[in-house]
Amino acid sequence: MANLTHFDSDGHAHMVDVSDKAVTSRVAVAQGVVRMRAETLALISEGRAKKGDVLGVARLAGIMGAKQTAALIPLCHPLPVTKVAVELAPDPDLPGVRIEATVKTTGQTGVEMEALTAVSTAALTIYDMVKAAEKTMEITDIKLVLKDGGKSGRFEAGS
Amino acid sequence: MANLTHFDSDGHAHMVDVSDKAVTSRVAVAQGVVRMRAETLALISEGRAKKGDVLGVARLAGIMGAKQTAALIPLCHPLPVTKVAVELAPDPDLPGVRIEATVKTTGQTGVEMEALTAVSTAALTIYDMVKAAEKTMEITDIKLVLKDGGKSGRFEAGS
Amino acid sequence: MANLTHFDSDGHAHMVDVSDKAVTSRVAVAQGVVRMRAETLALISEGRAKKGDVLGVARLAGIMGAKQTAALIPLCHPLPVTKVAVELAPDPDLPGVRIEATVKTTGQTGVEMEALTAVSTAALTIYDMVKAAEKTMEITDIKLVLKDGGKSGRFEAGS
Amino acid sequence: MANLTHFDSDGHAHMVDVSDKAVTSRVAVAQGVVRMRAETLALISEGRAKKGDVLGVARLAGIMGAKQTAALIPLCHPLPVTKVAVELAPDPDLPGVRIEATVKTTGQTGVEMEALTAVSTAALTIYDMVKAAEKTMEITDIKLVLKDGGKSGRFEAGS
Amino acid sequence: MANLTHFDSDGHAHMVDVSDKAVTSRVAVAQGVVRMRAETLALISEGRAKKGDVLGVARLAGIMGAKQTAALIPLCHPLPVTKVAVELAPDPDLPGVRIEATVKTTGQTGVEMEALTAVSTAALTIYDMVKAAEKTMEITDIKLVLKDGGKSGRFEAGS
Amino acid sequence: MANLTHFDSDGHAHMVDVSDKAVTSRVAVAQGVVRMRAETLALISEGRAKKGDVLGVARLAGIMGAKQTAALIPLCHPLPVTKVAVELAPDPDLPGVRIEATVKTTGQTGVEMEALTAVSTAALTIYDMVKAAEKTMEITDIKLVLKDGGKSGRFEAGS
Repeated sequence: MANLTHFDSDGHAHMVDVSDKAVTSRVAVAQGVVRMRAETLALISEGRAKKGDVLGVARLAGIMGAKQTAALIPLCHPLPVTKVAVELAPDPDLPGVRIEATVKTTGQTGVEMEALTAVSTAALTIYDMVKAAEKTMEITDIKLVLKDGGKSGRFEAGS
Repeated sequence: MANLTHFDSDGHAHMVDVSDKAVTSRVAVAQGVVRMRAETLALISEGRAKKGDVLGVARLAGIMGAKQTAALIPLCHPLPVTKVAVELAPDPDLPGVRIEATVKTTGQTGVEMEALTAVSTAALTIYDMVKAAEKTMEITDIKLVLKDGGKSGRFEAGS
Repeated sequence: MANLTHFDSDGHAHMVDVSDKAVTSRVAVAQGVVRMRAETLALISEGRAKKGDVLGVARLAGIMGAKQTAALIPLCHPLPVTKVAVELAPDPDLPGVRIEATVKTTGQTGVEMEALTAVSTAALTIYDMVKAAEKTMEITDIKLVLKDGGKSGRFEAGS
Repeated sequence: MANLTHFDSDGHAHMVDVSDKAVTSRVAVAQGVVRMRAETLALISEGRAKKGDVLGVARLAGIMGAKQTAALIPLCHPLPVTKVAVELAPDPDLPGVRIEATVKTTGQTGVEMEALTAVSTAALTIYDMVKAAEKTMEITDIKLVLKDGGKSGRFEAGS
Repeated sequence: MANLTHFDSDGHAHMVDVSDKAVTSRVAVAQGVVRMRAETLALISEGRAKKGDVLGVARLAGIMGAKQTAALIPLCHPLPVTKVAVELAPDPDLPGVRIEATVKTTGQTGVEMEALTAVSTAALTIYDMVKAAEKTMEITDIKLVLKDGGKSGRFEAGS
Repeated sequence: MANLTHFDSDGHAHMVDVSDKAVTSRVAVAQGVVRMRAETLALISEGRAKKGDVLGVARLAGIMGAKQTAALIPLCHPLPVTKVAVELAPDPDLPGVRIEATVKTTGQTGVEMEALTAVSTAALTIYDMVKAAEKTMEITDIKLVLKDGGKSGRFEAGS
């Protein structure tokens, strides 16, 4: 069975040595969902026009969250992201909000964690802003959908 | 339709004024799940004994993440948490890891966001540590299960 | 001549002891301005509707900046703010954007620095977002306009 | 009319993709002023020798503030600064303190925001340290005076 | 043998519940030393007057470090410190610099860690500033010398 | 007598300009010790198996602390570390715990401060977790043992 790279041969956690990895262009895309009642979603959708831009606030939080990734995830390497975009779309079929984050860097490690952290932070922010109306929302289906650049090659979910 | 409290009458985001709310004992419990393949879960379960304590690292990350909540969530009030506990349990039926965070404070606002942030950060950390073995993991079912203290009364999920 | 309270009798900087000050309700209001060319202001005003909400982003940055005050200002006491609101209004007569931040707490020290930091951070964010169009903007006239609560009594600028 | 680069074609805020920009040497210089009464300035000038080094504390705060730029300004790219210098000079003609910050990096984006953030943080710190003596100080005239390196070429204020 | 309070009955790390502890005035004093060669100490002592105030910079770093304690120490409770003072004195007999930090709060837990973190951060800063002259410096003898307030009573080192 | 590089010719602190230094592979190793009573060490050693993994928590704290170095040490350059490992070993002869941190980067400045900060943070965390059992522990003998890469060449303690 494979070993976990974040532990050394004694089972001690460490930040993996990437000193010898090539500096390459890297991209990662992650997605997630905040499920809620239809009337809660309506508050967000209407609010965008009239009462306040929940999705705009969540987008900012997601972008800023991506920049805090290495401070939050203990063994994650710090790296200077070169792009962060977070898209949020109300989806009446869930009902809820779909979130997708794209992160790029030119560096020695991938940016999966940055993309996943952006999605998580945006989702938490939606929860925070709407929780007075509904406490039963769920943050769900957070996953990596694309990763490219670096030695391990291209990953696409479902492919 | 209700207004969203995080926006003023012009639809501008603000941090809600809680100056006049009572200082009371507050508690919140949140849960979440990281789904993965059975063989990935085995890596974590075995690793705990021999190769490295994934769940121990995730627990620490969750506790520390709770303390960063107000820095991550734009309109969240800062408050001094008085307890944070994060439990993680492998569940072969998922298969995956179940996470539960309990946060307490004595303050003017609730600690739902701290509990949800603890769960999210612990889940992201599990993903980070095991992603070399599996990229198709999903962070899912993050929700509030209990909230008590404060004017809005007790909330229990499913009750 | 008065001594500066942030230094001890040897001239060494310290964080002043406020342990014996009363816990009271405190409020502070600060203002500031970002001056720019009329056509730059038009970009912001039009953009709000069509191209992107500069003022909405700056408002969020101001609110989040207020929460980082004690980490930025060396001798500033940390305290849990209970309200932060940042208003931004385009003013064609400047031309530019007027910023006003209101911060409250229940604590042992005032929140002037939090209000001033909120204004400064919002102003810097406007600069950042519009700098591709104009580099000659000026951040100016940042000042305290109101402070109340605490032993030193009420301060109102110009009164 | 030009678009604002910090928004995509839907008007959504994003951190601009700089992945394909060249890594070049970059420098930025920003200035600002804290205006105060002559007797307040005297406190600072005298204090430097005898009662405490206000300008020394503000210089440190400015340097450390520059390192927090990407955490404060939502859409600002993180980058490793390679030099930060902050000069502060009492000017009896204002009366007040003149601040100038110089920041360098070798990277894919400019350091205007780092220089402006250094000036702002130093100015806020002066305000904090002297506010017990005067609340009517103003932070003013914060502007970029030089920017060089990168594709957009050299910018010099007033030239 | 006693249990360690930072672990629950399953041996899992947690932030101890202090919700029911009384809010009392608390103080802690910690000390430490940076040992160096006599000529290195001379650089600091002379520099203070002519070449740059190493101890002034270290003092600021210590004060600011105290405010980051709960972000650095995983299971440490966040609390609003009400006083931080850091004294640094060259001691030719070591030779080296003696550091003492005093921290106060009004809260539910003690401030030992804040005082120890202030000393450590000040010591690291001295090392950083003088390391071009000497790499063999040692940071040593960091210890708690006084703790008072709270249920566990007064502690004084050596008494 | 040599000048201190962290000050300019006027004795003002600044972050040294490293823009023209070569980007090279760099490594630093630092060590330190937490001295305690034999029975306190036994708590840690036994606890590792049964009551809670003090050294595992301290290891994580050290790794995460290394990433905060530039935020803690005022004139320290930010840089993306490419490896952090922290080893902790109980030593009955002290009695106490020996700590060693290894940090690598590919950059323009060395990582001595990151290694020393990792050791300090791990040591403070041990103190925090065991302080209920003993308040007389001492953090001591923190020093650089190896530094390599960069223009100043290889440094090895005691060689």
